[in-house]
Amino acid sequence: MFEKVLIANRGEIAVRVIRACRELGIRTVAVHSTADDDSAAVRLADEAVRIGPPASRLSYLNAAAIVEAARQTGAEAVHPGYGFLAEDADFAEICADNDLVFIGPDPEVVRALGDKSRALALMRAAGLPVPPGSAETVAGLGQARAAADEIGYPVILKCAAGGGGRGMAVVGAPAELAGAYARTRAAAQAVFGDDRIYVERYLDPARHVEVQLLADGYGAAVHLGTRDCSVQRRHQKLVEEGPAPALSAGTLAAIADAALRGARAVGYTGAGTFEFLVDEAERFHFIEANCRIQVEHPVTELITGVDIVHEQLHLAAGVPLRPRQQDVLPRGVAIECRVNAEDPDRGFLPTAGRLDVFAPPAGPFTRVDTHGFAGYVIPPYYDSLLAKVVTWAPERELAIDRMDRALHEFAVAGPGVRTTIPFLRRILDDAAFRKGRYSTGLVDRLTGDGSAAPAEPAAGTGAYPPS
Amino acid sequence: MFEKVLIANRGEIAVRVIRACRELGIRTVAVHSTADDDSAAVRLADEAVRIGPPASRLSYLNAAAIVEAARQTGAEAVHPGYGFLAEDADFAEICADNDLVFIGPDPEVVRALGDKSRALALMRAAGLPVPPGSAETVAGLGQARAAADEIGYPVILKCAAGGGGRGMAVVGAPAELAGAYARTRAAAQAVFGDDRIYVERYLDPARHVEVQLLADGYGAAVHLGTRDCSVQRRHQKLVEEGPAPALSAGTLAAIADAALRGARAVGYTGAGTFEFLVDEAERFHFIEANCRIQVEHPVTELITGVDIVHEQLHLAAGVPLRPRQQDVLPRGVAIECRVNAEDPDRGFLPTAGRLDVFAPPAGPFTRVDTHGFAGYVIPPYYDSLLAKVVTWAPERELAIDRMDRALHEFAVAGPGVRTTIPFLRRILDDAAFRKGRYSTGLVDRLTGDGSAAPAEPAAGTGAYPPS
Repeated sequence: MFEKVLIANRGEIAVRVIRACRELGIRTVAVHSTADDDSAAVRLADEAVRIGPPASRLSYLNAAAIVEAARQTGAEAVHPGYGFLAEDADFAEICADNDLVFIGPDPEVVRALGDKSRALALMRAAGLPVPPGSAETVAGLGQARAAADEIGYPVILKCAAGGGGRGMAVVGAPAELAGAYARTRAAAQAVFGDDRIYVERYLDPARHVEVQLLADGYGAAVHLGTRDCSVQRRHQKLVEEGPAPALSAGTLAAIADAALRGARAVGYTGAGTFEFLVDEAERFHFIEANCRIQVEHPVTELITGVDIVHEQLHLAAGVPLRPRQQDVLPRGVAIECRVNAEDPDRGFLPTAGRLDVFAPPAGPFTRVDTHGFAGYVIPPYYDSLLAKVVTWAPERELAIDRMDRALHEFAVAGPGVRTTIPFLRRILDDAAFRKGRYSTGLVDRLTGDGSAAPAEPAAGTGAYPPS
Repeated sequence: MFEKVLIANRGEIAVRVIRACRELGIRTVAVHSTADDDSAAVRLADEAVRIGPPASRLSYLNAAAIVEAARQTGAEAVHPGYGFLAEDADFAEICADNDLVFIGPDPEVVRALGDKSRALALMRAAGLPVPPGSAETVAGLGQARAAADEIGYPVILKCAAGGGGRGMAVVGAPAELAGAYARTRAAAQAVFGDDRIYVERYLDPARHVEVQLLADGYGAAVHLGTRDCSVQRRHQKLVEEGPAPALSAGTLAAIADAALRGARAVGYTGAGTFEFLVDEAERFHFIEANCRIQVEHPVTELITGVDIVHEQLHLAAGVPLRPRQQDVLPRGVAIECRVNAEDPDRGFLPTAGRLDVFAPPAGPFTRVDTHGFAGYVIPPYYDSLLAKVVTWAPERELAIDRMDRALHEFAVAGPGVRTTIPFLRRILDDAAFRKGRYSTGLVDRLTGDGSAAPAEPAAGTGAYPPS
């Protein structure tokens, strides 16, 4: 096992990885921007290296500074968390060139799956169902229009260079296409530095269901079950749960099988997530794969008892896959709510500032992953995720009641700071959510004011939370 | 189900019960002394009633004030937590006389098992093995000496009127008997208001193993497995774990069977714990039963997924026992460490005062039950339990490593406040503990200065934490 790991990230996921390392006897190096000098990750890590100013491209996206910090501290491996460099194949290659283990799949796998258009083609070739669509990127508005006409409206425009919902635009009718096309291309360029886009049939209503996988470099792979992530605002997940509710056991098993088949087809290694859309007839379509730890991984951990970050570390160190499929015994239901520092009354505008009060919930079957603490100053530079509250219960209804209890308990206060807690509680109280019969349209219906509809990103702000 | 429940307790267990009630849609009433005006329980409960001054006998032991608070607020049931009135048969009767449901067994069961000498006789009659001993209380030093001579030294003197380790004295040789007898009688009078004592063979080395039970009033009972509570200082538990390690599956099953047999013999209802001592040959002896929720119940909750306080509420409301034995599927290992506000360098002297910093650990498979918060002032009047940290893992070794990570993270600071955290980490690091091969002598060995040896209680201070 590694003796020292560098965490190339910030926020709650950096804290999460530091905890996993300490439990395994691995020393940790936190790298951080000047905006995070006093962060929880810096406090908890064994060592900390300041790598740049607040702007992500000069710090958390600064591959050279991160590699230099690893060299200085003698770290042998880099855990990229999610977002930032987590799915950057170039960074994975730079790590390899510097004798650093990148904790994730091989660079060529990251590159293949990171190109969402190419990933669709690969998975179609592997026999996975994919949404009706252009399969290849469209060169210009004319091709986009031709593709949309062939597929049939509504369609969704997606960025080829990156997933996680960023930059997507739903187009309901031909008249909206030109504007949406321009916006999505601009967003693709701004967010990913790559303006290629592709067109897919927009499935509505649909459920977003994903499969958590682990695979080693020796041919072994297991799935850890499904999660439903349909509760989204602007394609950003707000509430996730597992196992996916209201789908038949046969459909869930078929989706898990498809994910394993897809992972094997590309030689996937490490922890990863294969995402699908499922329509009302329970037909499912692969949409993208994420080559990293997922924000919502605790849902699966509470159900299976498997520590996914531990497994990432073991796999990256070359240990053969430890859990066997027959040992993965799911129990009960888990739900995660993302508490974002945003103002639901002002279009979910991110809020920053000092947390005078920060008292997360605790107690039975309640887990909180957060980097917040009383006195913490939320910087304005990064995504707005403040805490993940995850509850577990033998039955779904109690898991929801427990979540409502936990959110009720969560005390956060500071000048100018608002959170999504009240909005999350509205979701929990929604009759369709309670029944488990909801789709990706749930949040649109609740906000009712269009604030949940897809919109163009604020370029370069990093305002998009990761998926 | 009840609409409103009064919690006749304070500290972490009051918070625990409030959480359970809220999850079940039950409104809560916290009663509190003036020392707890700003407590977490008062903050979290739907209503709060101040019932008296700091001294427990005028507040948390004041049955009349508690019943009056229930009447005023319309509460239908009283949850007594542990300690205080939890095993007071008179209080259970007063509740019944006032049309309040006492959440616990029937008063006659509380009375029978609360008299530890009588409980031993009942369990012996039910076929449970009990330690060699006087079985009946001894009337005077002469009888005590005769009993000890017959049993053989070392012996242990115990209070008949109450358990939980309070007032006990180990006597290694006849010359020590007179002094120990006088001290234990005085302690029995001071703590329980009843100076009857009895004599048992002192088993050393021995393991303290207990069984968590649930039983309804319709003849159904299940056990939720075992816990080992051998890590004790002055017969007060510091670390608990489940399942009991290093015992054969056959022995564990036999102990669980014996507990169920004992519970059935007395018509036990609700949640309860049957405690045993196990010698090196894995012979086990019933020592006492606790008619209430146990401090260490979260260990069992994390292993089984059963919320024991929920089950208490359902059972008290007359719902037939919900878990069936075949549905109780234990998973993995859980450990609890009691973080007490005590100074291990000064004989574990309780410390009080303001918590300027209070940041409990969190994250994967880590549960903290506490009433502490930043700014909380620990009052000097009650027991020193500040927080329970509980970790879970598929394997024992990882559960211990996880606990060490969690305790490392736990930040507590305030003028004059010291905690047992450093001492707990020494226990976790002990080679015998790591191997699971330890006995009730572990803490004595670690302190090595006699501070862990049994001593007389500080009369009337309530300084003894509950078991």
